[in-house]
Amino acid sequence: MSTKKLWGGRFQAQAEAWVDEFGASISFDQLMADEDIEGSLAHVKMLKKTKILSEVDSNKIIAGLEELQQELHDGKLEFTVENEDIHMNIESILTEKIGPVAGKLHTGRSRNDQVATDFHLYVKNRLPKIIEEIKTIQKTLVTLAEDNVETIMPGYTHLQHAQPISYGHYLMAYYAMLKRDVERFEFNMKHTDILPLGAAALAGTTFPIDREFTAQELGFGDIYTNSLDAVSDRDFVLEFLSNASILMMHLSRFCEEISMWVSYEFNYLELSDQYTTGSSIMPQKKNPDMAELIRGKSGRVYGHLMGLLSTMKSLPLAYNKDLQEDKEGTFDTVKTLLPALRVFNGMISTIKVHKERMYHATENDFSNATELADYLATKGIPFREAHGIVGQLVLKGIETHHNLQDITMKEFKQISPLIEDDVYNMLKPEVAVERRNSLGGTGFKQVQMQIEQAKVDLAK
Amino acid sequence: MSTKKLWGGRFQAQAEAWVDEFGASISFDQLMADEDIEGSLAHVKMLKKTKILSEVDSNKIIAGLEELQQELHDGKLEFTVENEDIHMNIESILTEKIGPVAGKLHTGRSRNDQVATDFHLYVKNRLPKIIEEIKTIQKTLVTLAEDNVETIMPGYTHLQHAQPISYGHYLMAYYAMLKRDVERFEFNMKHTDILPLGAAALAGTTFPIDREFTAQELGFGDIYTNSLDAVSDRDFVLEFLSNASILMMHLSRFCEEISMWVSYEFNYLELSDQYTTGSSIMPQKKNPDMAELIRGKSGRVYGHLMGLLSTMKSLPLAYNKDLQEDKEGTFDTVKTLLPALRVFNGMISTIKVHKERMYHATENDFSNATELADYLATKGIPFREAHGIVGQLVLKGIETHHNLQDITMKEFKQISPLIEDDVYNMLKPEVAVERRNSLGGTGFKQVQMQIEQAKVDLAK
Amino acid sequence: MSTKKLWGGRFQAQAEAWVDEFGASISFDQLMADEDIEGSLAHVKMLKKTKILSEVDSNKIIAGLEELQQELHDGKLEFTVENEDIHMNIESILTEKIGPVAGKLHTGRSRNDQVATDFHLYVKNRLPKIIEEIKTIQKTLVTLAEDNVETIMPGYTHLQHAQPISYGHYLMAYYAMLKRDVERFEFNMKHTDILPLGAAALAGTTFPIDREFTAQELGFGDIYTNSLDAVSDRDFVLEFLSNASILMMHLSRFCEEISMWVSYEFNYLELSDQYTTGSSIMPQKKNPDMAELIRGKSGRVYGHLMGLLSTMKSLPLAYNKDLQEDKEGTFDTVKTLLPALRVFNGMISTIKVHKERMYHATENDFSNATELADYLATKGIPFREAHGIVGQLVLKGIETHHNLQDITMKEFKQISPLIEDDVYNMLKPEVAVERRNSLGGTGFKQVQMQIEQAKVDLAK
Amino acid sequence: MSTKKLWGGRFQAQAEAWVDEFGASISFDQLMADEDIEGSLAHVKMLKKTKILSEVDSNKIIAGLEELQQELHDGKLEFTVENEDIHMNIESILTEKIGPVAGKLHTGRSRNDQVATDFHLYVKNRLPKIIEEIKTIQKTLVTLAEDNVETIMPGYTHLQHAQPISYGHYLMAYYAMLKRDVERFEFNMKHTDILPLGAAALAGTTFPIDREFTAQELGFGDIYTNSLDAVSDRDFVLEFLSNASILMMHLSRFCEEISMWVSYEFNYLELSDQYTTGSSIMPQKKNPDMAELIRGKSGRVYGHLMGLLSTMKSLPLAYNKDLQEDKEGTFDTVKTLLPALRVFNGMISTIKVHKERMYHATENDFSNATELADYLATKGIPFREAHGIVGQLVLKGIETHHNLQDITMKEFKQISPLIEDDVYNMLKPEVAVERRNSLGGTGFKQVQMQIEQAKVDLAK
Repeated sequence: MSTKKLWGGRFQAQAEAWVDEFGASISFDQLMADEDIEGSLAHVKMLKKTKILSEVDSNKIIAGLEELQQELHDGKLEFTVENEDIHMNIESILTEKIGPVAGKLHTGRSRNDQVATDFHLYVKNRLPKIIEEIKTIQKTLVTLAEDNVETIMPGYTHLQHAQPISYGHYLMAYYAMLKRDVERFEFNMKHTDILPLGAAALAGTTFPIDREFTAQELGFGDIYTNSLDAVSDRDFVLEFLSNASILMMHLSRFCEEISMWVSYEFNYLELSDQYTTGSSIMPQKKNPDMAELIRGKSGRVYGHLMGLLSTMKSLPLAYNKDLQEDKEGTFDTVKTLLPALRVFNGMISTIKVHKERMYHATENDFSNATELADYLATKGIPFREAHGIVGQLVLKGIETHHNLQDITMKEFKQISPLIEDDVYNMLKPEVAVERRNSLGGTGFKQVQMQIEQAKVDLAK
Repeated sequence: MSTKKLWGGRFQAQAEAWVDEFGASISFDQLMADEDIEGSLAHVKMLKKTKILSEVDSNKIIAGLEELQQELHDGKLEFTVENEDIHMNIESILTEKIGPVAGKLHTGRSRNDQVATDFHLYVKNRLPKIIEEIKTIQKTLVTLAEDNVETIMPGYTHLQHAQPISYGHYLMAYYAMLKRDVERFEFNMKHTDILPLGAAALAGTTFPIDREFTAQELGFGDIYTNSLDAVSDRDFVLEFLSNASILMMHLSRFCEEISMWVSYEFNYLELSDQYTTGSSIMPQKKNPDMAELIRGKSGRVYGHLMGLLSTMKSLPLAYNKDLQEDKEGTFDTVKTLLPALRVFNGMISTIKVHKERMYHATENDFSNATELADYLATKGIPFREAHGIVGQLVLKGIETHHNLQDITMKEFKQISPLIEDDVYNMLKPEVAVERRNSLGGTGFKQVQMQIEQAKVDLAK
Repeated sequence: MSTKKLWGGRFQAQAEAWVDEFGASISFDQLMADEDIEGSLAHVKMLKKTKILSEVDSNKIIAGLEELQQELHDGKLEFTVENEDIHMNIESILTEKIGPVAGKLHTGRSRNDQVATDFHLYVKNRLPKIIEEIKTIQKTLVTLAEDNVETIMPGYTHLQHAQPISYGHYLMAYYAMLKRDVERFEFNMKHTDILPLGAAALAGTTFPIDREFTAQELGFGDIYTNSLDAVSDRDFVLEFLSNASILMMHLSRFCEEISMWVSYEFNYLELSDQYTTGSSIMPQKKNPDMAELIRGKSGRVYGHLMGLLSTMKSLPLAYNKDLQEDKEGTFDTVKTLLPALRVFNGMISTIKVHKERMYHATENDFSNATELADYLATKGIPFREAHGIVGQLVLKGIETHHNLQDITMKEFKQISPLIEDDVYNMLKPEVAVERRNSLGGTGFKQVQMQIEQAKVDLAK
Repeated sequence: MSTKKLWGGRFQAQAEAWVDEFGASISFDQLMADEDIEGSLAHVKMLKKTKILSEVDSNKIIAGLEELQQELHDGKLEFTVENEDIHMNIESILTEKIGPVAGKLHTGRSRNDQVATDFHLYVKNRLPKIIEEIKTIQKTLVTLAEDNVETIMPGYTHLQHAQPISYGHYLMAYYAMLKRDVERFEFNMKHTDILPLGAAALAGTTFPIDREFTAQELGFGDIYTNSLDAVSDRDFVLEFLSNASILMMHLSRFCEEISMWVSYEFNYLELSDQYTTGSSIMPQKKNPDMAELIRGKSGRVYGHLMGLLSTMKSLPLAYNKDLQEDKEGTFDTVKTLLPALRVFNGMISTIKVHKERMYHATENDFSNATELADYLATKGIPFREAHGIVGQLVLKGIETHHNLQDITMKEFKQISPLIEDDVYNMLKPEVAVERRNSLGGTGFKQVQMQIEQAKVDLAK
């Protein structure tokens, strides 16, 4: 049988400990202990400023909370399931420390706006960290791209060689994805940086509180102007989980490619020993575990998004206990994202590129077929017709084990007398890459321009 | 056996019709026919401007496309599965119309950037419509709120009466949610309003195309600066599906409440006959079908989000056929959202509010308990202690079928000699509501302020 | 820098500790420590029996493992991140205890089949526990139903009063759902009860192992007959998560109803104080927290299902590190399900039913309209016509505040001269319920029959 | 303004057409027209048999329905949105045909049990078709496996060469997965093959209906024994969507491998021209579109599962309009699965295997490292130590470009004097495969055994 609850006035029977445990959130919401104390400090300072509490009472509470804060940082606070959640735990410890005056801290607020405030602070504090880690990867990508502007590799569509591209260009494609990720997390701040405190249980309070003061104390840029919305809104969390899902999707694509490119068959990249593991049974194995794990963890983050969307579906206003389920998935997402981003950065920073093997692959793969078709088109053959002619040449080439660059001028002339010797230069992979100089193309100049722009953006 | 494909140069055998059908997208991507022609028109104008195509050829193609456009609007275009997708269908019809010169239209582009452009245009064109429908609902909510600032109803947490609130306040909570929805869809435009055309297959093109010109023609504000990213990015779609999911979640909450509030037991609201249906067997039934359907459709939209996230996981760059799966879920989401928003608006516009029943419910529900606790707190009793005292009174009240306002002054004095006659006024629901006048609270003035602000915002 | 790995022969550089931590699974897979030792014991006994290991070596290993097992149960084992996972941790501790001979334990197996075996054992051990908890609820439902065969309540469709039903009948509907849940978890055993051990890394082993012996030792009923499948199959987990999702969906429906039925407006049920909580601010509150939490946790379980489906999508054979992500969601599902089921059982066992209030609601709600329509149909009026007539009567009744039983015989005769006095009896709720005696209907006899059959089934 | 509804007795105002359209299901539920008529025929025969309807009336209705059935099969039936759903449409057409007696068909049933019956029949009719298509693939796999028992290929874990395996073994791994799929769809029948008809709206009926008779007419093996459950249960659909998701996951894994194996770098397989497509711009392309599409469509099916789980969460009993959302996702899943399975079968049936290239890859990849470690273990070196030794040899081999089979006997003797000449034989890929003859291993005999067993199973 658990101890009498702080809210237990009207209750006669009490729950068994295992029932309490099911309902308690302290096992996970203690992750917000810091935010909880921070929020309480701001609240009591507001109560003092508005004279809702006397200076004497306020100062006692402030001193007590600051002591608690120190003890928390020193790892000395201990929480119990009996006190359900982080709010009740903090209040209970505070009461032990400063006596019943601690009870006045809860004036003009409720756990409903308190937990919302803690959670807003939690996400608000993590967003910049995540953005910073993404930007670190972006910087790494720019550095790697700079080293590889003229590294030629096969460009793929449908995992088939399509056209040769610059490896730097490929790296910058991920830069572009991450740029959008950053923008999404920045936008995420808009709906996170809103103060719910003061909404009380659901309807506001009769106490003459000063929410602008509290917002300023806590560094919030905005304040919820509807108290029902303040305690029941979790949009900022759903945005966060959605942004995290898209980010993980991006990483999963790169990791999939790493996984293929370090394979025996591709052998285009080599991971550092530090980011691979071995097998307990096969001595030769060097597995891209980190890439696989990051890829695999996208499912986990998707799951958290889907979980919260489902949980929130059809919930009547305002607060319902179902909302307690908002936290674990979010905490786990943060716990997944931060190291995943760091590991990802370390992994790609230490990759060795097998440039010659990449280049060699572009010489024997008919990926210069578009060049030839384009060449014919510039000679006046409608593109569709040129496409058909080259298709036939490829078919024949596969049968006879000849590449397009092996076709003799005599044979070329039979196709069109307009074909000249310059065709052979066009068919070289590096020329093919260099000449794709349309805006955003893989041409070296274009890649260089992307890099320059990225440096400017990152320096902001 | 299907007809020879436009891309079929190197192919010897051809697919059975049922295999073609599995791969074909024309059954759904014809929804983008307009966007496809629009994109082609801009492309050929650019080819003309840059002299990649001759004036004569360009003009023929332009005239042909404009004719097609007209025929499309007149409902005269017919598409076939043999031509796979909307792009091949349009080109094929164009060829019939103007001959082989039509083949030159595809110069400097690929289906990969073409389909991405169509899809960007499709979403870009729908976002404002969705935003408009949401704003229509917001206007309705403001109008309804204005009529109900002083309509007293029970405020709920855990679906238990918590504190009396203003029905206008409740309505404005949904206004606030929808405001964030609008902001999300507006942000969605940022990553939608980017032109992929010119990225060609994946690597850009050797033709001296002018993507700025094309962007201007099509009204795009930005241009993809990495061609790999341009053809493989679907972030704008995922953002759209995520935003749609959150929007549907909001609607599902309101619809859940409508469903409860029109029940026999609540009977707080009454839906217009127009937005209800009957039973084939029970003559008395009047079912809130529309509210249920909108609520139920949230699952469908969630599913589309989850589907595309799963599909895109681990896809290597650049284009893969898996990406064809991006469309149907998105089209269905648009087809779900637009009527759902309209029906929702019609439904809430025509609701009849049973104000007296709402008010009556707040008189017998102990939802003025917080008032009494707060009152005691203002008399110097620590809130926690006051809370406990009132809890005991509630427990006794339930047993003896007395409300808090039925407690005699003599009994009150036993609790605290500081309690005065003004306590009875405090315990009235309307006073409780009016006095919750903290910023964002349910107090009438606060609700009125929200409404005024909303009017200003909507007038922008 | 972490310590040299057991698989580290070919590795030169080693990972930073934080990279190791990202890849390590020991923080969660220690939950399978018992299963891991159990599996190792069976394996070494097999190695002994087949003489792959000498009797002396085998015995040393067996003794060592049994000691470990004891220490585990005594809570004395300590695991480290350096040793990555539970398998390496156990082997490392075993080596400390019995020396290098411990290395022979891994003969003829790999971590790939080892972890699969542990996980199969883990799920195999939990399925019966979950089934048992479900059956406990089923028993409770039968007991409650027996007490409420003749308790009349409104039956709902669209949350509108449809026809009066027996509360016992309502309870037995959930019995039926749970029966299917049990059948699903039982079927789940079919694909769980298969031994992967002996598949080694992916291809089987050259050692003359005896998998039938191992299977018998571990109590497995079946053996994977394809080694690639053995190490990469997680169907049994997906089935488990899918079954758990459906189960939670069922519970969420009941919890939703509880949440509504304990509301002020319904007031049909009252929860025990033990399964409710109070508010930190509103002294009168008695919140159905447990029902809300269970309902909310359905989202979490859905998320785990979606997460693993996403993670497994497109994974090439055989084992990939992504599969490490299979565990946490599953462990959390077990940790969610078992207490949720127990709390649910406790909660419904202690519910107080407000029978009179339920009954009263069926007297004034026109839910006897079908009775009248059916009555008219038995008098020869086509059902569709009868339906229309009664619809008109209801409409009029609502306007004039009269129920159908208030219609005079004279008025009835105007509708049809065939209507007799017996119609009034038909219109009584309890008669309406009793007469719905078609197979599976809410008629008392039918409900009683369901209960009898359930008792027989549960006694099996 | 739409026409008066069949259920419209109590309604005064009517919905706008666009509102009706939002609520109407006829656009998709006409897919169950056949099932609807089938169910009605069985129902009226029961009404006749039980004399609830006169012989004359019954016969008229039966004749009318049979006529409708014929017209449906002849493609002559036309449905309208005004009549909402397939049930009302059929009844309306029947009324046109046979007059008001058609109204008697609805005696003793409701749309709630009617739609449930239709949907059960729909799934019941599709399950065997899906099972049949899966079995067709299984037969293809067995045939292919038989041709490739001794085809040597690299076996992968982490997409790294692990150990050489038989390609036949690999194919049989998918056979094993599909076997579980078949078992799941077979189990799915258990909860599909239950008749809801007779549950009426939610509570059964007062008419003396004979549900056993109806069940027999419709070929149902079981009958719902609780009417509330009968109309609100969608477990059979969730099972179906879950099974479909797992099946698609399996196919996505194979398709992912096909996509990689037909790449330039792997080049282990070659798809028939019939199951590939070309590029509109790159003449050399031969894209594995079908494999990619099937892989991509797994997301879509996952989405439908997640959608329905979300929709059903927290729905109170019994029928709610939300349940109308159960169909489109299910229909689309059937429409996805059947052709996907057929295309998949055609695709793998026509694959060309590059056996020499596969074999060659196993000679230079150190995938015989386990052989050497095992060999050392049989010579008495503890496996962990042997593993370390071989790891060092691999490291040296990579640096010096020597494989393990290139190590001289002199060098081997330095490692252990116990190594003999037979080691070289052990290191051959085909020997490594052949010797992995443990139960379920890749050894040729084991693969042959799997094939024999599969033939026996498929012949059942």
